Amino acid sequence: MKYHLGTEGTFTASTGSTTKVYLAANPSHLEAVNGVLEGVVRAKQDRIDLGGAGFSVLPLLIHGDAAFAGQGVVTETLQLSQLRGYRTGGTVHVIINNQVGFTTGASSSRSTLYSTDVAKGLQIPIFHVNGDDPEAVAHVAELAFDYRQEFNKDVIIDMVCYRRRGHNEGDDPSMTQPVMYSLIEKKRSVRKLYTEALVGRGDLTEDEAEEALQHYKSELERVFTEARKSDGQQSSATQVAGLERPESQMEDAGVIIGWQTAVPDKVLAHIGAAHTRPPEGFNVHPKLNQLLDKRSQMSTDGAVDWAFGEILAFGSLLMEGTPVRLAGQDSRRGTFVQRHAVLHDRLNGAEWTPLMYLSPDQSKFWVYDSSLSEYACLAFEYGYSVERPDALVLWEAQFGDFVNGAQVVIDEFISAAEQKWGQTSSVVLLLPHGYEGQGPDHSSARKERFLQLAAEDNMIVAEPSTPANHFHLLRRQAYQRPRRPLVVFTPKQLLRLKAATSSIEDFTSGTFQPVIGDSSVDPAAVQRVLLCSGRVYYDLLAERSKREDATTALVRIEQLYPLDAEQIVAELDRYPNAEFVWVQDEPRNQGAWTYLITRLPAYVPVVAERGMRVISRPASAAPSAGTAKVHQAEQATLLEEAFAR
Amino acid sequence: MKYHLGTEGTFTASTGSTTKVYLAANPSHLEAVNGVLEGVVRAKQDRIDLGGAGFSVLPLLIHGDAAFAGQGVVTETLQLSQLRGYRTGGTVHVIINNQVGFTTGASSSRSTLYSTDVAKGLQIPIFHVNGDDPEAVAHVAELAFDYRQEFNKDVIIDMVCYRRRGHNEGDDPSMTQPVMYSLIEKKRSVRKLYTEALVGRGDLTEDEAEEALQHYKSELERVFTEARKSDGQQSSATQVAGLERPESQMEDAGVIIGWQTAVPDKVLAHIGAAHTRPPEGFNVHPKLNQLLDKRSQMSTDGAVDWAFGEILAFGSLLMEGTPVRLAGQDSRRGTFVQRHAVLHDRLNGAEWTPLMYLSPDQSKFWVYDSSLSEYACLAFEYGYSVERPDALVLWEAQFGDFVNGAQVVIDEFISAAEQKWGQTSSVVLLLPHGYEGQGPDHSSARKERFLQLAAEDNMIVAEPSTPANHFHLLRRQAYQRPRRPLVVFTPKQLLRLKAATSSIEDFTSGTFQPVIGDSSVDPAAVQRVLLCSGRVYYDLLAERSKREDATTALVRIEQLYPLDAEQIVAELDRYPNAEFVWVQDEPRNQGAWTYLITRLPAYVPVVAERGMRVISRPASAAPSAGTAKVHQAEQATLLEEAFAR
Repeated sequence: MKYHLGTEGTFTASTGSTTKVYLAANPSHLEAVNGVLEGVVRAKQDRIDLGGAGFSVLPLLIHGDAAFAGQGVVTETLQLSQLRGYRTGGTVHVIINNQVGFTTGASSSRSTLYSTDVAKGLQIPIFHVNGDDPEAVAHVAELAFDYRQEFNKDVIIDMVCYRRRGHNEGDDPSMTQPVMYSLIEKKRSVRKLYTEALVGRGDLTEDEAEEALQHYKSELERVFTEARKSDGQQSSATQVAGLERPESQMEDAGVIIGWQTAVPDKVLAHIGAAHTRPPEGFNVHPKLNQLLDKRSQMSTDGAVDWAFGEILAFGSLLMEGTPVRLAGQDSRRGTFVQRHAVLHDRLNGAEWTPLMYLSPDQSKFWVYDSSLSEYACLAFEYGYSVERPDALVLWEAQFGDFVNGAQVVIDEFISAAEQKWGQTSSVVLLLPHGYEGQGPDHSSARKERFLQLAAEDNMIVAEPSTPANHFHLLRRQAYQRPRRPLVVFTPKQLLRLKAATSSIEDFTSGTFQPVIGDSSVDPAAVQRVLLCSGRVYYDLLAERSKREDATTALVRIEQLYPLDAEQIVAELDRYPNAEFVWVQDEPRNQGAWTYLITRLPAYVPVVAERGMRVISRPASAAPSAGTAKVHQAEQATLLEEAFAR
Repeated sequence: MKYHLGTEGTFTASTGSTTKVYLAANPSHLEAVNGVLEGVVRAKQDRIDLGGAGFSVLPLLIHGDAAFAGQGVVTETLQLSQLRGYRTGGTVHVIINNQVGFTTGASSSRSTLYSTDVAKGLQIPIFHVNGDDPEAVAHVAELAFDYRQEFNKDVIIDMVCYRRRGHNEGDDPSMTQPVMYSLIEKKRSVRKLYTEALVGRGDLTEDEAEEALQHYKSELERVFTEARKSDGQQSSATQVAGLERPESQMEDAGVIIGWQTAVPDKVLAHIGAAHTRPPEGFNVHPKLNQLLDKRSQMSTDGAVDWAFGEILAFGSLLMEGTPVRLAGQDSRRGTFVQRHAVLHDRLNGAEWTPLMYLSPDQSKFWVYDSSLSEYACLAFEYGYSVERPDALVLWEAQFGDFVNGAQVVIDEFISAAEQKWGQTSSVVLLLPHGYEGQGPDHSSARKERFLQLAAEDNMIVAEPSTPANHFHLLRRQAYQRPRRPLVVFTPKQLLRLKAATSSIEDFTSGTFQPVIGDSSVDPAAVQRVLLCSGRVYYDLLAERSKREDATTALVRIEQLYPLDAEQIVAELDRYPNAEFVWVQDEPRNQGAWTYLITRLPAYVPVVAERGMRVISRPASAAPSAGTAKVHQAEQATLLEEAFAR
């Protein structure tokens, strides 16, 4: 079983016709796979690229009755079904309705008559069918398929049946459902009932029935023996189980040779210029005219801001043939009025996406505002990324704290899919994070939680402090192998901070810097090294400058996991007389502190020798204080402590 | 604003009639409050106790259009609306439909025509009403109220309107919704339109209108000034904002004087005996007859197992007048066929709940199997507990790993509500946790995540290792003040482990032990102290016994947060010659290790001096290995390392 390992293969029908079949890896976590499968299917359809007319890949989702009624992510996923950025031409849902949820009866499971009623609001046809009648089930399956093909919408088969041996085939439901299970005990199996019916009406002889049964059993036996034989002989989880590895998971899938993250200056200029060529007759919003001019200017003169640095990453990838898909809550414009990946005609609302008009042979750029869901939407992008190793796939949260709505996707897939199933993805999470006095709900993406999940190189966790480093990070993510999910804590104030801009050279040379050292101080004179990541760097920089302090170095850890031990050692070894202090604006029990102090000394001898202390807000139950006034006082204390001697 | 602080008060209508109003504290986290409010209302109704007929408290939920369509917890909460354990007699939902989700248009937000369509499957009437027509809105509000009162079911008002100044009253939606906002800019305000209509039809003079406006403005001004005046003068968050503190949040709410956690032996015997008195004619399931006899026997003879220890906690509280409410996935029988709080007649399914028949003046015992949701269901119990300081309120997960489906409730309410709003709760989370080879999905409740959130005494995190300590923990939780949520990692194997039973004396004397020391060894001879919590203790105990090792002490930390420094110091000081080793069966980056090593040395001088090392599985991306074979090998290594010299 290997926890519901996925696979891929070819199914041959009794007629000799064949079709490709893909089985999604599926955790034992109710309905979590729904969005993932939709993403996988959409990715396959986008690759085939038949346009809106060609939904030639069919998603099939199998549900339990209690989970279908109980889990909100079911509705979230259904809500995506007709959206431009998410539609897959209709999913066939099959409810294996055994009329009980582990031990819980229907009257405790839902407020509706049928477990499928929740789908009625979406006008999805529902076929309730008797699972004891195989011909009726087959008929309904054909109807459902025809409906999907004709209307390209979701359809549901509610197969009403029972589970003879209870939950997991090992429970005794007669303790909790005695009446139902008295009936079930008396029932003969579907196979027996149907065999008798076939024999009775002369469609089959008893010998033929017996032969079919023996054939089926021996097939099961054969496959089981084969699977056991290969057990333990090969390394990957899929191979261990004797299953085919999906194409998207091959080691060479989407591999690019000779990539680098820096780009020629003419590429930058080209992307900038694309922002000055609105379509004929397009009325740019007066407030955005200036922005477009500025983007063009930044692309040649520098002082590139965050949003444009990101646009340059996307644009340059597109020009190199790498598709880019970004979806999230308000991602087209950006939560902080910064991205403007899509512009709207001031008079008629028509859309213009400059990155779609870079060159005739560029790759596709998809940017979507998502529904106001995290769970289903992040699952979708994860699945999309699994299936499209050639693309850069990003999901963005409106604010970073909302990501906990998708905690199941992070726990079950993003952090653990490779270890569980050998399933890789290079999905990117963009999570706005920063202590700027907005209160407990819009300050933190809970960095500490991702760092706690970090192990076995399962993902990359980064917090770049400059547009160029963000640019290099995203470009590296598109090409680097093996593929790993990337979690980026993205800024808010820095989007508009002059000090946090990058020069043209920062994009045309160098690459992603996991550590940014301090070249502005004399290492021998340094008494204290302040290590940090994210926006607090700029606070520290301003404070040091104000104090004309020449004895403090500022070292930025831009990639928090995996730690680049070599670079950290190299940088910290430069300061023979310094103490090491980690500064974070998060409370003590949050941010990177606990993670760093338990891992860094093992990699960095000078830290093991000299130790490292922390300056932070005190440990806190909530991510931050509730008022801007308290926040500012806390921030002043933080800076005071950082430079106090 | 203080992040949507809750309050309570009396509303006086223009007629002079009054009604009590309660406003739930509400985080800036989409729809998260829904289940909480339902729990609060149900708790109020249960206290009034008019039975099924008297739903005299009306829940009113206000939603945004995009969140109502996007967030799955909306459906999860609607699904609870008619369930015996959750119904509140109908909720009135009001959608403030401003036709845009921050920047996202309806066509990107949902696959339905209306944002409310998802509720159609639940047969909830929906009134779409023009927000520009105040009289229509008032009329529809009356209709909705009448419907709720008549049918005791949910009803929805979809008030279609607009937001003139965009999201948070500070955004410029004309960049993304130019056509709609061109129309809105031209529109006059609802107030102006309605005033003109009233003046036009002679219902109001212009002077009266002006006077009413001035009166309204001056009222706002007055309240604002009052609120500012009290700012900072008082300590609690509610008082700071000049708001009334809800009754349930008063310091003396539900306070019991003279409580203790031990109970007389006759109470135990009484609860045991209640299991041998089925109702007249009740046919006990043959498999459970023996269990009932055993419970009766345990109640006098000892060797009390886990499930019965818990039953004893509930039963004794009920007899003392403390109501107990337990809801969760399969909680009546228990995921592991252990609790059997409710029994079913083998022939007709009729229910028998022994704890309901303890004494005539006992308190109410409610035990419910929940729908297969975590988010809405945990939110509900949290809300219920907020409002019922006199009751022990528990939510149970089917397996501990499912709790991440309710991560938002943990982050926004359970861990942070007191710090944010001064809102206390003593809700209990029962989370099955234990490394027993069941794979990544049913081993871990992610202890480390709760411990990371632990700060400012925001909750209690415990993992008792004996039935009696579990019993004392639950009883303490019912009475201890100030109230704090309690997270209990509950066992699986220990439910049936002989070594993990308790004697009668364990229940009739003593109290909850946050630390259980080792009285079986000569402290001077001890070279190594193994500290641990949970089931691994019994593995270590068996291994030590097998090895006849007299130089190793086993110390159990039963309460992980807050750490009882005094008791830990007292216990560890007994071993002058020992090294300290923390043993956990969780991987290195999980379990309590990171938490302990960053916090314990500050409290425990001997640990600061001698240090503490760890024996665990290696850091891991998933909570555990996928196969029982690997698990067993890992466990053997763990035990080997624990005793190797």
